[in-house]
Amino acid sequence: MTEQTIIALDAMGGDNAPESTVKGAVEAIKKYPEVIVKLIGLKEPVEAELKKYEYDKTRLEFVECTEVVAMDDHPAMAIRRKKDSSMVVGMKMVKEGNAASFISAGNSGAVLVGGQTVIGRIRGIERPPFSPILPTAKGPVLLLDSGANVDAKPEWLVQWAKIGSVYMENQLGIKNPRVAIVNVGVEESKGNQLVKDAYPLLKEADGINFTGSIEAREISKGGADVIVTDAFVGNVILKMYEGVASTLLKEIKGVLLSSIKTKIGALLIKGSLKTALKKFDAKSYGGAPLLGCKGLVVKVHGNATETEIVNSIGQCIKFNEVHMNEKIKDALHLGTEEA
Amino acid sequence: MTEQTIIALDAMGGDNAPESTVKGAVEAIKKYPEVIVKLIGLKEPVEAELKKYEYDKTRLEFVECTEVVAMDDHPAMAIRRKKDSSMVVGMKMVKEGNAASFISAGNSGAVLVGGQTVIGRIRGIERPPFSPILPTAKGPVLLLDSGANVDAKPEWLVQWAKIGSVYMENQLGIKNPRVAIVNVGVEESKGNQLVKDAYPLLKEADGINFTGSIEAREISKGGADVIVTDAFVGNVILKMYEGVASTLLKEIKGVLLSSIKTKIGALLIKGSLKTALKKFDAKSYGGAPLLGCKGLVVKVHGNATETEIVNSIGQCIKFNEVHMNEKIKDALHLGTEEA
Repeated sequence: MTEQTIIALDAMGGDNAPESTVKGAVEAIKKYPEVIVKLIGLKEPVEAELKKYEYDKTRLEFVECTEVVAMDDHPAMAIRRKKDSSMVVGMKMVKEGNAASFISAGNSGAVLVGGQTVIGRIRGIERPPFSPILPTAKGPVLLLDSGANVDAKPEWLVQWAKIGSVYMENQLGIKNPRVAIVNVGVEESKGNQLVKDAYPLLKEADGINFTGSIEAREISKGGADVIVTDAFVGNVILKMYEGVASTLLKEIKGVLLSSIKTKIGALLIKGSLKTALKKFDAKSYGGAPLLGCKGLVVKVHGNATETEIVNSIGQCIKFNEVHMNEKIKDALHLGTEEA
Repeated sequence: MTEQTIIALDAMGGDNAPESTVKGAVEAIKKYPEVIVKLIGLKEPVEAELKKYEYDKTRLEFVECTEVVAMDDHPAMAIRRKKDSSMVVGMKMVKEGNAASFISAGNSGAVLVGGQTVIGRIRGIERPPFSPILPTAKGPVLLLDSGANVDAKPEWLVQWAKIGSVYMENQLGIKNPRVAIVNVGVEESKGNQLVKDAYPLLKEADGINFTGSIEAREISKGGADVIVTDAFVGNVILKMYEGVASTLLKEIKGVLLSSIKTKIGALLIKGSLKTALKKFDAKSYGGAPLLGCKGLVVKVHGNATETEIVNSIGQCIKFNEVHMNEKIKDALHLGTEEA
């Protein structure tokens, strides 16, 4: 018998909620027989969506709340004051052991603050990093940190390297993942102060396969499996990736639709192009986990569809089944007690 | 009569030198009747290349040197010790007023160190930034700093914003250029310490059109004309742009060549695609200027072809003709005396 995973899902977060979140929950319990989803949201809109579907009510439970954290709410303020929001209620479930994971497509800052303060860090983890998967020509790469800790300390990068290695090995099955630090050149003498301080620590760190510096140019080519950097640079990497890819693809789409001739050409290449570009879609890996909290917190894109919700639920199941947090604690020699 | 510009060109720097540099020089003096190029390099290889062409010897002068700064030389060491290298000899010409500009496709670090120490900063300029043009969906954007000063101070960003505004206005004719600072969100409260410190200074700075923060996602869409950031982040932006674009285009090229069907499709879209993607080629703007030195220093891509050499020579002519350094000094209230 497989282990059962209970997931708290913020029904209200994201541009397409609650349509996408409710539909995602319904699809997920069909796809994953070992999951129980607790859907937290406002009574009226969520029940209106739930009515559309036939589903196993023993595995998809609606939990009513009365507040919602808005996209433009001040994160810390919202978590402190909106005690009955879908976000705080869902996170408390994880805190109290009533759910293994929390998923939200809502306010990123609030997910971060809530993860740290409501759920809390694993004892000994300094700063949980947002850790999205980026696609590359050779497969997925994990980027830590992409948004949580902008002015990072060298020691944090070492923890992130270890956490990321454990995640990639156990979640994605990548053996002995190559860990690299983002730098402006590959020579050891290069870098800003953070990189100069973190580099020797990474070199000496036990249990990771540190391969040195990676220039940003090599990231999309697949030069590493785990990439560590401060959250300012990580955020720039993530958003440059999205921005440049979207700008170029938009331009190319414009070309394909520009004349009868190009439209015919487009028909001929469409299928192959779609297949080739599919590997640059990281959505199948789920959302960006905030790693190092007591229980998994996953931030899904604000514009997430039901497919991304389903994928994130799959991600949380896997995370729970492989006992990821125990493995992270082992790798960091943190013992089993939680803070 | 147009002003005559004398340019010192490092014949030896870059992967394709001296073929590309000599050919570029020959083409440039044909294209620009107001230019004199002093080509600095080793006797044998440069003369062998020069022999291939007919050209006006009064405007293309070979200056012999006996040393070359290698791509893997330690920058500061190379500038200090290789006194008769094409790089140091060329920079000395600028220093001594025998040339207005220096162009090299060689060792970037050495170009930077040489620009600062051999040629020297304009008095009052704290740190000259490498300032490449990036292409966007809406036209060019200037990125300062992309490689010179990794741990930057807030005041430097203000100088770079002013220098960049003057450059974009006078070199590219962009009136009242929009200046933005790279950030992880658009709210004024966002950012790392550098951004939090620099933001209010930029807001209060005179003579610039500061529009606030820009997220990396918006850069390729054309969200600003001048972008300031520290050189670590700037370098990541530059290289992410190159990396993602090259990875995606390579992937698409692979698709187009994958079958008879797609090859026919490719033939139908090829012309339009080439035209559309041309605007994402920033080579026509020349190389990356190291702005704020007494005389212009331009770093061209290591793999530059003769076309980029020609374009960089054009860039130096324009820079000189519009009296850019005088305008920079005016904008920064630095007076006319040089350090």
